[in-house]
Amino acid sequence: MNIQSVKGTRDFYPEDMARRNFIADLWKKVSIRNGFVEYDGPIFEYLAMYQQKSGDEIASQLFAFEDRGGRMLAIRPEITPTLARMVNQRINALPKPIKWFSVPRLCRAERPQKGRLREFFQWNIDIIGEDSVLADAEVILTAVDYLREVGLTSNDIKVKISSRKLLAAILRGIGVPEEKLNSVYVILDKFTKLPADTFSSLLTEQVGSELAGQIIEFMGKSFNNLLTTTKQNKEIEDALAELANCRHCLEEMGIGNYCVFDQSIVRGLAYYTGIVFEIHDIQGDLRAICGGGRYDNLLHDFGGPKVSATGMGMGDCVLEILLREKGLLDKNISANSCDYFIIPINYSYFDASISLTAKLRQKGFKSIFSYKTAGFKRDESPVLSKLLKEASAVGAAKCIIIGDEYQTGQLVVKNMTDGSQQNIAEKDFFDGLRQQR
Amino acid sequence: MNIQSVKGTRDFYPEDMARRNFIADLWKKVSIRNGFVEYDGPIFEYLAMYQQKSGDEIASQLFAFEDRGGRMLAIRPEITPTLARMVNQRINALPKPIKWFSVPRLCRAERPQKGRLREFFQWNIDIIGEDSVLADAEVILTAVDYLREVGLTSNDIKVKISSRKLLAAILRGIGVPEEKLNSVYVILDKFTKLPADTFSSLLTEQVGSELAGQIIEFMGKSFNNLLTTTKQNKEIEDALAELANCRHCLEEMGIGNYCVFDQSIVRGLAYYTGIVFEIHDIQGDLRAICGGGRYDNLLHDFGGPKVSATGMGMGDCVLEILLREKGLLDKNISANSCDYFIIPINYSYFDASISLTAKLRQKGFKSIFSYKTAGFKRDESPVLSKLLKEASAVGAAKCIIIGDEYQTGQLVVKNMTDGSQQNIAEKDFFDGLRQQR
Repeated sequence: MNIQSVKGTRDFYPEDMARRNFIADLWKKVSIRNGFVEYDGPIFEYLAMYQQKSGDEIASQLFAFEDRGGRMLAIRPEITPTLARMVNQRINALPKPIKWFSVPRLCRAERPQKGRLREFFQWNIDIIGEDSVLADAEVILTAVDYLREVGLTSNDIKVKISSRKLLAAILRGIGVPEEKLNSVYVILDKFTKLPADTFSSLLTEQVGSELAGQIIEFMGKSFNNLLTTTKQNKEIEDALAELANCRHCLEEMGIGNYCVFDQSIVRGLAYYTGIVFEIHDIQGDLRAICGGGRYDNLLHDFGGPKVSATGMGMGDCVLEILLREKGLLDKNISANSCDYFIIPINYSYFDASISLTAKLRQKGFKSIFSYKTAGFKRDESPVLSKLLKEASAVGAAKCIIIGDEYQTGQLVVKNMTDGSQQNIAEKDFFDGLRQQR
Repeated sequence: MNIQSVKGTRDFYPEDMARRNFIADLWKKVSIRNGFVEYDGPIFEYLAMYQQKSGDEIASQLFAFEDRGGRMLAIRPEITPTLARMVNQRINALPKPIKWFSVPRLCRAERPQKGRLREFFQWNIDIIGEDSVLADAEVILTAVDYLREVGLTSNDIKVKISSRKLLAAILRGIGVPEEKLNSVYVILDKFTKLPADTFSSLLTEQVGSELAGQIIEFMGKSFNNLLTTTKQNKEIEDALAELANCRHCLEEMGIGNYCVFDQSIVRGLAYYTGIVFEIHDIQGDLRAICGGGRYDNLLHDFGGPKVSATGMGMGDCVLEILLREKGLLDKNISANSCDYFIIPINYSYFDASISLTAKLRQKGFKSIFSYKTAGFKRDESPVLSKLLKEASAVGAAKCIIIGDEYQTGQLVVKNMTDGSQQNIAEKDFFDGLRQQR
């Protein structure tokens, strides 16, 4: 039998796992220092949950299956529906605002391509129960805090911010019918990807040439231009004030230089209701690194009360490509290392060597013995130079050599950095360790 | 829409996630200090991989599905087949012995019951390419190193060790036909669970009453008794010497008091070939906490060369029940905590408060502001006592109060443990932080 892995999945050999852990451990660390606490849900849920709320693209990419009780289930393609379900189940008991993060493994039946796999990891952070734009700003701060920590500067990435509320107000203000809003969003979402004339004719098809012209005019305006020249009404003014407040918070938080207003940011999912954003690499040939926004209706749609919410997701695939391109991945992966490598000089010290190794491990030190010294293999003698080479290969900081000095209770400790070595009584050695901790 | 979770899965609310992380983070820490490196595979593989090699019980509990290309896939019920596939793919490039660990999420379509869920996490460690029993002993040491670290003593748990090689040698020695070995293993595996007469009649059914009697006699012997009184042949002597060497290593490693020989340990899976073991709670009403052993043929069965291997798996469900029973779970979960809680005394210091919070986070400190102070909510004033209460609720070690002193660059730092507070220039405060790191 010779079975392969499934296309679009990844094997994480130790060097790949080290990269994945570097990315995900920092997601956790940054979430925690920004005040988020971790949650997780099951890897599969009822299929209906995703069919009804995940938007057409995700719903078409489900790995669905039937269990033996005839229930239709699916591997999770995103975690937001699980989050909504879990929060709704305890909505009255949970103190607000809820600031939660998760690093779920997700699966989508996509055609594998650059930056998209059928199995990936996605950092999610969400703030539930807080309607001020300070929460939207904090979500963006947390995402940038991570990307900055990993070494990406405002010359590498840009946070593009817009507002579904502003878009809706502008579109309504110029007379786009309510039932056309969602189909117009879908076109606006493609503004930067489509040639100007295709964009224009798609819009004209939906709302006629006059409204299409006004929408195109809006798409060309800067934020300051919008603040002063757009024909205002209460709805537009509120939406602009919210964006201005958000921008003010981001500046005070020290990340104003990472952020720009960009009305072409719409986000594919239907559930967004306010501020929306994406983070892109400035060279711009990759998909979005991260995207999110406010979704004040989702918990209610999932059978709960109307509770405001805002959040974001960042996948590992595009991020890993970008970090690799920028030279920020492998330099952050630490090489092999261990605290102690234990060497018995001959077979009579084998027992002492495994005993010492076990003690060191129990005390929290990464300690390794060589299988070459196993006392049962008396057909070949251990050779010190070979064992020292093995110690270097595993990145040992120090070797402990157990030789005839051990008969008077002495160990030889060799510093592998400078090659120096000293004899020390076993008891003093362990007393010294206690002080290190 | 009001959708529930699927029965047999778990929602990890933050307090549940903290317990899961406590268990799994320590799995990782102990693996690393014992010299193992982490790997992982995909959450799904080709169905055929599990149908052919996982043993009947697991093969009957697969969550299988078809992808859009018509390929039959399954969510992984165990990670050993993936390990065999991955190691075989790079068998010549990987230095031996391979010491790998993983903490995979696994799914089995079982009927949910105490200690068994349809989704769980399982610590796996494996040593590949080393045939001495030192490797078997190191696997057991690593498992015990974890259980000891978490607070379980030799009064709580016992490692029960046997040998498939010894069982085979004994059974062959008394004349059990080769083709009966596997069905006799299945019965021996139930030795402690069946009444004596049921056990006896099951054996008699397979091998006749005379052989059944000899097997029952063997099952009653102590290890020392076996060493001296069993009718010996070369195969039995080799197997006994291996067990004796293993026991010697475990004693030298300081965990002899955790270990006993127990010939009723057989392990369900067909692929074991040498030393096998299980770890049980001494009260004995739970399923095995952990099980493993040597499986020298598996890589070859998966299309690779013949390479020796030994390893073990420990699930989170039984372990969590035991830790909870022993009072070792929640005492190890740290309470809410944060480094700094930032309080602006009135709205004019709101900007300074979010700016300071963002700076502290960037420097690695967990820092929280209150949404009650958001500058946009000018309809209600922030009340210091309420904010201090919020700071206590999130476990703040210190509060930074920004008041009128800030106009001359001063912060007020309040120690939440003893209630003391001091004024400090912002610059001096940040200089002090740098020294802390």
